[in-house]
Amino acid sequence: MPIAYIEDIARHEGEQVTIRGWLHNRRSSGTIHFLTVRDGTGFLQAVMSKANVEPDVFTLADHLSQESAIVVTGQVRADSRAPGGFELEVTTLQVIGESHDYPITPKEHGIDFLLDRRHLWIRSERQSAILRVRHEVVNAVRDFFNSRGFILVDTPIFTPSAAEGTTTLFPVPYFDLGTAYLTQSGQLYNEANAAALGRVYCFGPTFRAEKSKTRRHLTEFWMVEPEVAYATLDDTIELAEQLVVAVVERVLDKRSRELKVLQRDTSRLERVKTPFPRVSYDEAVKILHDRGVNFEWGNDLGGTDETVLSEQFDRPVAVHRYPAAVKAFYMEPDPERPELALCVDVLAPEGYGEIIGGSQRIADADLLLERIRQHNLPQEAFEWYLDIRRYGSVPHSGFGMGIERVVSWLCGLDHLREAIAYPRMIYRMSP
Amino acid sequence: MPIAYIEDIARHEGEQVTIRGWLHNRRSSGTIHFLTVRDGTGFLQAVMSKANVEPDVFTLADHLSQESAIVVTGQVRADSRAPGGFELEVTTLQVIGESHDYPITPKEHGIDFLLDRRHLWIRSERQSAILRVRHEVVNAVRDFFNSRGFILVDTPIFTPSAAEGTTTLFPVPYFDLGTAYLTQSGQLYNEANAAALGRVYCFGPTFRAEKSKTRRHLTEFWMVEPEVAYATLDDTIELAEQLVVAVVERVLDKRSRELKVLQRDTSRLERVKTPFPRVSYDEAVKILHDRGVNFEWGNDLGGTDETVLSEQFDRPVAVHRYPAAVKAFYMEPDPERPELALCVDVLAPEGYGEIIGGSQRIADADLLLERIRQHNLPQEAFEWYLDIRRYGSVPHSGFGMGIERVVSWLCGLDHLREAIAYPRMIYRMSP
Repeated sequence: MPIAYIEDIARHEGEQVTIRGWLHNRRSSGTIHFLTVRDGTGFLQAVMSKANVEPDVFTLADHLSQESAIVVTGQVRADSRAPGGFELEVTTLQVIGESHDYPITPKEHGIDFLLDRRHLWIRSERQSAILRVRHEVVNAVRDFFNSRGFILVDTPIFTPSAAEGTTTLFPVPYFDLGTAYLTQSGQLYNEANAAALGRVYCFGPTFRAEKSKTRRHLTEFWMVEPEVAYATLDDTIELAEQLVVAVVERVLDKRSRELKVLQRDTSRLERVKTPFPRVSYDEAVKILHDRGVNFEWGNDLGGTDETVLSEQFDRPVAVHRYPAAVKAFYMEPDPERPELALCVDVLAPEGYGEIIGGSQRIADADLLLERIRQHNLPQEAFEWYLDIRRYGSVPHSGFGMGIERVVSWLCGLDHLREAIAYPRMIYRMSP
Repeated sequence: MPIAYIEDIARHEGEQVTIRGWLHNRRSSGTIHFLTVRDGTGFLQAVMSKANVEPDVFTLADHLSQESAIVVTGQVRADSRAPGGFELEVTTLQVIGESHDYPITPKEHGIDFLLDRRHLWIRSERQSAILRVRHEVVNAVRDFFNSRGFILVDTPIFTPSAAEGTTTLFPVPYFDLGTAYLTQSGQLYNEANAAALGRVYCFGPTFRAEKSKTRRHLTEFWMVEPEVAYATLDDTIELAEQLVVAVVERVLDKRSRELKVLQRDTSRLERVKTPFPRVSYDEAVKILHDRGVNFEWGNDLGGTDETVLSEQFDRPVAVHRYPAAVKAFYMEPDPERPELALCVDVLAPEGYGEIIGGSQRIADADLLLERIRQHNLPQEAFEWYLDIRRYGSVPHSGFGMGIERVVSWLCGLDHLREAIAYPRMIYRMSP
């Protein structure tokens, strides 16, 4: 009997197929079992009538418990009442692996209980839908850059120095060489790579030893970071806009079933089109003041400020030209107002906050060195980074986009911890 | 003037375009400068005739040094003598960033000198070709799995326990939770994910604190690991074969220019077709003995043994069913000969050694527990892993493929350190 995956079931209408999966749920009457089978690609109702199967098979199904591994064979039948439009008329059933007292039942469980059982929790309809959306986001991002001539260059995880200070770094003893730090960003390497390959991106895990317990922080998260030689801040804002729109469109297109499971209001996502509103930091401060927020010019925007700002727009908003003092040392100053940095943060709508942060980078070696000193960074560790300015320096720009934040926004999640299979937080590193 | 990338130059034949890049090389006569310009996407000969440009522009080019950032404008002209078939007839030149005493000259440099300047070395024709091949390998792998219904599930980097012993782990202090270890493999998590999503893969950096200084070891390397529920050893060998062939074909198709730069003998790669020869460990031992190698049944294959074996075949060879004693604790024993594991190593030809290692995993909870105890692993740390067998256990299989080893083989490299942008080895963690 041909083995089929549930996601392809429509192609098998009228055929006899075998589905290999697990029992998600069972309802039974005296003469009929309704088995909801999941195989990792979807959920399917398998209907077993007493009249169609051997008596011992029917009895076997009487005692099947949640998450038993089962192989069912039967005919695929279109049925408009069935979720997904098809069901399986079961003729044989085989139990491959039993499951007793599966801990995650349809009742409510606390978040710690579920996170302790994350390896099982991901089997649920909701959690597996989120992971599929994440898969689509990652691939949409990669396809976006690959189709535009970008070269993936994996930047190192072990780094000898830090892009943005050392307080939030994870140190790792490294043989006889002292301490390596887990990367917080591939950007500095990206800059060297862009000088070699023109348009590059890195996409890997990044680490922040932040003691924040907020719903917007993980200690380990994935970030994509493009960097483009000869690109200005405006170029990078445009690239960021296009990326976000491409990702949203792809998820709407390919993962509508998952968004439905998540009960996501997709009309909010359908509004995400270019151009995004562009608001300078100065204008942002005005908006905050107009909305009665007590905010002092010169500060960085906090989570609440971002929420107030993003609520003014029906799509992501690009906030640019923050005061240089609250931003990273490597950002190019605005030539018209050097107290500002040529930078941009893209804030997601619906209160999801910053999903992208980027900038034009300092091109001048002397200015960069001055900034390294002002920030009390060890010059020696940055000699290689200065080299990028010593040997054929060009204007260049890039940004980073946090994958969990995007997934969280697109899925409408309350907390980043559901946007990754095995979340790592200050108080959790297992399973 | 439209800005063009060198890789697209053929599309601009006869047009005036601007190329933004760096000076790779210069030859000059009294009335003509031949400037080899690179822009990260390729190399182009830009010809500047004294008659065609302002006198000061011609003089400027007289003093241009290697890796100066330059913007050149001119007409694209087909010329069969030019490398790539096109050249640019320059009418204007602008210097964006100077470059004095660029350290990597056309003369020979030692490997440490070059690795210390890896951020610049990657600008060379050879190194950038390798990075482009790597890019293609990674994307071929991802496309392979995505097009076959696999879901990417990123497995965690911070793990509480180790898949294969703790001696080669990097420990990281983790807040108040004690020590996290950097992942050596996502496999254990993949197994849980396959039970949730059917067919999954992870693809990320992995870490081994091995003190080996061989040309086949890095402390940080990228690995792709698929895992399939309901798959047997044979299924996973077939999947591995198909993956390798898909990657080789894609690189031959899309990166012929780069392979030419690397002077790779592609006839050796063109022979890589399914099916691969499949050789049991027993047969492998016989082959070694026939070739006069002193090898005792029961040992693991060493690098030299692998080379002797792989030299018998014109394509990768799948060696299966090693003695369980030399393999990992989680491998399913061969039901016909329980002293053997249902495992496979795929050895690349031309002496490149193991590129893939995989197995069917133990499905039975009791047997798995027994193995955990035999290997003196802490049961508590593996409770979640045992859960996969407690709740609907199914046969399942998967493998890991090391990206740097594949890149190294496809590019014909002597050492893994050139197969990644910023190699990390026992004696190197910078730049």
